[in-house]
Amino acid sequence: MKIIRFNAFGRGHEVAGVMEVDDPGSPAEDEVLVEVEAFPINPVDLLTIAGTYASRPKLPAIPGSEGVGRVLKRGADVTHLKPGDRVLLMGRENWMQRKRVKAAEVLAIGVEADPLQLAMLKINPATALLMLKRYRELSSGDWLIQNAANSGVGTNLISLANADGVRSVNVVRRSELIAPLESLGADVVLIDGPDLAARVREATQNADIALGIDAVAGSATGRLAECLAEGGVVVNYGLLSGEPCAIDPHQVVFRQISLTGFWLVKHLGTMSNDERAALYSELGARVASKALQVKIAAVYGIDDIKSALEHAAREARGGKVLVTPNGPVS
Amino acid sequence: MKIIRFNAFGRGHEVAGVMEVDDPGSPAEDEVLVEVEAFPINPVDLLTIAGTYASRPKLPAIPGSEGVGRVLKRGADVTHLKPGDRVLLMGRENWMQRKRVKAAEVLAIGVEADPLQLAMLKINPATALLMLKRYRELSSGDWLIQNAANSGVGTNLISLANADGVRSVNVVRRSELIAPLESLGADVVLIDGPDLAARVREATQNADIALGIDAVAGSATGRLAECLAEGGVVVNYGLLSGEPCAIDPHQVVFRQISLTGFWLVKHLGTMSNDERAALYSELGARVASKALQVKIAAVYGIDDIKSALEHAAREARGGKVLVTPNGPVS
Repeated sequence: MKIIRFNAFGRGHEVAGVMEVDDPGSPAEDEVLVEVEAFPINPVDLLTIAGTYASRPKLPAIPGSEGVGRVLKRGADVTHLKPGDRVLLMGRENWMQRKRVKAAEVLAIGVEADPLQLAMLKINPATALLMLKRYRELSSGDWLIQNAANSGVGTNLISLANADGVRSVNVVRRSELIAPLESLGADVVLIDGPDLAARVREATQNADIALGIDAVAGSATGRLAECLAEGGVVVNYGLLSGEPCAIDPHQVVFRQISLTGFWLVKHLGTMSNDERAALYSELGARVASKALQVKIAAVYGIDDIKSALEHAAREARGGKVLVTPNGPVS
Repeated sequence: MKIIRFNAFGRGHEVAGVMEVDDPGSPAEDEVLVEVEAFPINPVDLLTIAGTYASRPKLPAIPGSEGVGRVLKRGADVTHLKPGDRVLLMGRENWMQRKRVKAAEVLAIGVEADPLQLAMLKINPATALLMLKRYRELSSGDWLIQNAANSGVGTNLISLANADGVRSVNVVRRSELIAPLESLGADVVLIDGPDLAARVREATQNADIALGIDAVAGSATGRLAECLAEGGVVVNYGLLSGEPCAIDPHQVVFRQISLTGFWLVKHLGTMSNDERAALYSELGARVASKALQVKIAAVYGIDDIKSALEHAAREARGGKVLVTPNGPVS
């Protein structure tokens, strides 16, 4: 079978390639054998191949932070999965045609939905949904605010909030992002700047905003804090600015704004198996109903991995690049 | 009777003075008449007189953020207080010999204890106790860390934690503060600096510290965050640095450190009457048992208010300055 492998850190299309290896063989008692239907090329994959991600793998290494597939065989002790079940690959090293994996490291998706969309469910949509749900109870008509609204998580958050009737203020850095985000369902899109809070008040008619989602850090954290109603929470999950989260103590003390952080790995680790299954079932249902739709730039076969990697590394690609290692899926 | 009044904003001993006014008269149905036994001169009082505090009073004004007294008379509807009861004055404008006040704005202190100490109970000890208790459940042997440890709140926090067996790391800026804080019960006293976290780990033998109390803000907030165990909380209540609270997103996201703020006025406002009474009863009991003892620099009569104000404004005065407007108390 074919796998993707890289022997040195560097640009994906230069260091990674297809390699023929032995089939993984029959699953052990607690394992399943999965045929990988599709995987996306995420920024985290490119960073991992570049050697610039937080954790550097031992070389040679197989990339792959996400993927979806079908169970081909199961081990003797595996009763909750059967051949034909579609599963999310919850571990790493997923860029291969078939994967032998502990049954506990896959998650059955009970709904029939586009496998290309399901392949992108593990990270960004889960991050967006958990941040939307776990910090404040927002009802239809309530508002949230986020920055880096054009990111993968940001666009998922717009879709998820919109489907629930939760209104979003979306902060971006470039005006050409306004129209695309509005067409996704963003209620308000504003360019970041020192007078952000005043413009948010005007655009929302002084709405009470209880939740701020921050992927930027630095002074952007404080600007989100200023936009929140008393007692609001800023949830930071990224550090695009490279600066410390900075919030004026007046916001913290007199307006009771708090700052907390979200990390998917950690959050999933605190959830029970049933809670994780419920989370991804909900996301799967949203994909099935088309409430959650990530734009796809292109789909490549496994032999075209270098073209796929080159495409995924482009700044303006207008959507995700995916690979279907066993041929086209629908 | 005599009151303290100021007609212009400025230095206390220059603009404030004693004034003879009519007695306040009999209490209305929902009021009590209180003979003021003692009040401290707090930094907030000096700032109010200077006109530099957040809220500027209308002139002429009577200062006084704290005070303790005895009920002289009660209104017809007041049943929970009787003449002779010792009460904390929970409102402002307390620098006078007798005060007619809504019964709801005083709080009975059930224990017999030094009225000079009770006069200082409303703000700093309550702030310290609420921050010690409300964010993390600390048991005997657990650790907390605070900066500005030599402040009024900081020294109260040392006493309160010490009495409960909770160990404290106390961060200060000058080495001459180490010995006095240790004699108060501080377990560890360290000078702030970029390598604070490493020195804290060494001094506490890698103890898990769940609670950080921050009166400084700026990069000091982030240094406290680095000292905390995963999942810890930094509670900010002051802005001595004048800078925004700054915390590295790695602390917030990967180590799940959160930042929240404490404001006494707000916190008391969320408590029921019974909860407030219980809080100050607990503090009163700690004064009675001498677990809570604020150092007193001097006690003045009301006619010596200018000397008292001048003394209170000195940098190194080694304790609080109090006034006993109806003569010495014990």
